[in-house]
Amino acid sequence: MRTWRVLIAGFGTVGRGAAERLVAARSELAARGCDVRLVGVLDPAVGSVVCPQGLAPERLLSMVGQGARLTEYPGAEAVADLSDALDRIDVDVLFEATPTDLTNGGVGLEHVRAALAAGVHVATTNKGPIALRHAELAELARERGVQLRAEGTVMSGTPVLNLAEVGLAGAGVHSFRGVLNGTCNFMLSEMESGRSYAEALAEAQRLGYAETDPAGDVEGHDAAAKVVILANLVLGAELTLEDVRREGITGLDAGRLQDDAALGYRWRLVAEARREGERRHAAVAPVRLPSSDPLAALTGPGNLLVFETEALGSVSIAGPGAGRAATGHALVADLVAIHGGAGR
Amino acid sequence: MRTWRVLIAGFGTVGRGAAERLVAARSELAARGCDVRLVGVLDPAVGSVVCPQGLAPERLLSMVGQGARLTEYPGAEAVADLSDALDRIDVDVLFEATPTDLTNGGVGLEHVRAALAAGVHVATTNKGPIALRHAELAELARERGVQLRAEGTVMSGTPVLNLAEVGLAGAGVHSFRGVLNGTCNFMLSEMESGRSYAEALAEAQRLGYAETDPAGDVEGHDAAAKVVILANLVLGAELTLEDVRREGITGLDAGRLQDDAALGYRWRLVAEARREGERRHAAVAPVRLPSSDPLAALTGPGNLLVFETEALGSVSIAGPGAGRAATGHALVADLVAIHGGAGR
Repeated sequence: MRTWRVLIAGFGTVGRGAAERLVAARSELAARGCDVRLVGVLDPAVGSVVCPQGLAPERLLSMVGQGARLTEYPGAEAVADLSDALDRIDVDVLFEATPTDLTNGGVGLEHVRAALAAGVHVATTNKGPIALRHAELAELARERGVQLRAEGTVMSGTPVLNLAEVGLAGAGVHSFRGVLNGTCNFMLSEMESGRSYAEALAEAQRLGYAETDPAGDVEGHDAAAKVVILANLVLGAELTLEDVRREGITGLDAGRLQDDAALGYRWRLVAEARREGERRHAAVAPVRLPSSDPLAALTGPGNLLVFETEALGSVSIAGPGAGRAATGHALVADLVAIHGGAGR
Repeated sequence: MRTWRVLIAGFGTVGRGAAERLVAARSELAARGCDVRLVGVLDPAVGSVVCPQGLAPERLLSMVGQGARLTEYPGAEAVADLSDALDRIDVDVLFEATPTDLTNGGVGLEHVRAALAAGVHVATTNKGPIALRHAELAELARERGVQLRAEGTVMSGTPVLNLAEVGLAGAGVHSFRGVLNGTCNFMLSEMESGRSYAEALAEAQRLGYAETDPAGDVEGHDAAAKVVILANLVLGAELTLEDVRREGITGLDAGRLQDDAALGYRWRLVAEARREGERRHAAVAPVRLPSSDPLAALTGPGNLLVFETEALGSVSIAGPGAGRAATGHALVADLVAIHGGAGR
């Protein structure tokens, strides 16, 4: 049995989902020889604490559920930030689950850099650092002999990056296409069933799929970040967000979608990239698909990704693209991969 | 860079496919620090040889293509069998690709046992040893500190076992259902399009999907073996082939399938297993599905598997279920997993 000392940065939906999954998966992880000790949680909204003897995830969840500050946890020590935490205690793995900032990476990028520099493995669900600075961070991880994992940045906990990294290793993946933004897919499904764009958006917001400011989803920024991450990690590209031809769903007319649906076509926000020799092409755009296309069959908030490979032809994976348990699971799966890669 | 000395047992379609993939994936593997030296090939039909300095896969393929015996390979030493080979040279990984024997495991079972006992990692595409003796073999692998991997036993190189082992680790997989026999699915697709059972079988044989004796496919034995493998490896069950309720497609009437297709239903040979507390249920049987079911949408020889999980809900993966390159790839992907698990 190996004990991994984990620190969670960001204790909102994703961080709490990870804590819940650590509880739910405890015996399954133990059966793999993987024991987890949660040694710290950082979040300005609920309090930042460390405790080298370990914090019980159940108790942390119960405290935040009751509106208590984590600094009241018996025996825990308040800390100012990640640097302060890393100065005070030993950490093996950082779960980075702060909100995504696609402009400059924000605090998530600072966290990932600081952890890797300190020789700490990183599992992150934060698209910012990976979409903006993957090459630099991967190099830093290599130098320090630790892993940088980001399963939760694309399709939440649906294990697409692990699939590509190990299962498709050596298969010659040359392109991918998918539906990677569940909010847009839900809205398009609603629109082709008769709702207007405004009604579909309001329904997505009511159900918690879309933010109050939906621009990140409906203008394709979120999907573009995922294309960059997949292209760079899976196709070995070195793309930036500016390299992705991006068009959102805001210009689509619901009447047109309904007419096309009657003719057997479905509009989907398709995210794709392709390697052609040394060239890489990447795009996010609404595409009119025949109903026989697997992407057309996907309705609602789910995600679907199809890899095109030399050895296997098409391999597709479908699953949730968001959700507390699903995204929390991504961090646990990354931990299992780190555990496996360390040699058992 | 770590060099892995690989021996291939069985140099028919799958073994040759693996050799081809080792050539095609050489630079991709090298980029992961994984170098492969093919130190032996065993096959009574084309000759069994070892060569500690390494055999060029291209040359082996060219020789068998021209009908030459591998014992003519310059500098290679003829061997009688696997024990003889392991006595003469050092081997790190066995690729076991002999034909499946679901009665008693056949030579494949002997190979896997002997290799593990000698401290050699095993990657196998042979369903026999895994469906019949997984618990015993996995225990032997643990004792000897080596890995036993079997990606190619289910859905050929479509990485379903890796997906479950790492990507879904801790996700709480409680059941799965899928279409795991491409021959039957091709025949059912043909029958619902107007062909008789006999015509569909003849077409499957013409295209190389079905054997001359198709019983293993059409009576559900092949799918049942895959259910046992998935249930034991993914659900932690300890099933035997006798525990699977098995019904093939031989009793299906093409007229009925066509009538049902007109009503929006599709018949599929569904392979499934479920964990309920300490109980495990497993079955292979033709099922009439509504056309909205993802398994209904699968036509032709492809495979599709849906895992039901606590953290992620449904996660599905689709890809080829057979084929030379696809099955050969499975062995390469298993090697990459062994390489990763050894710590880089």
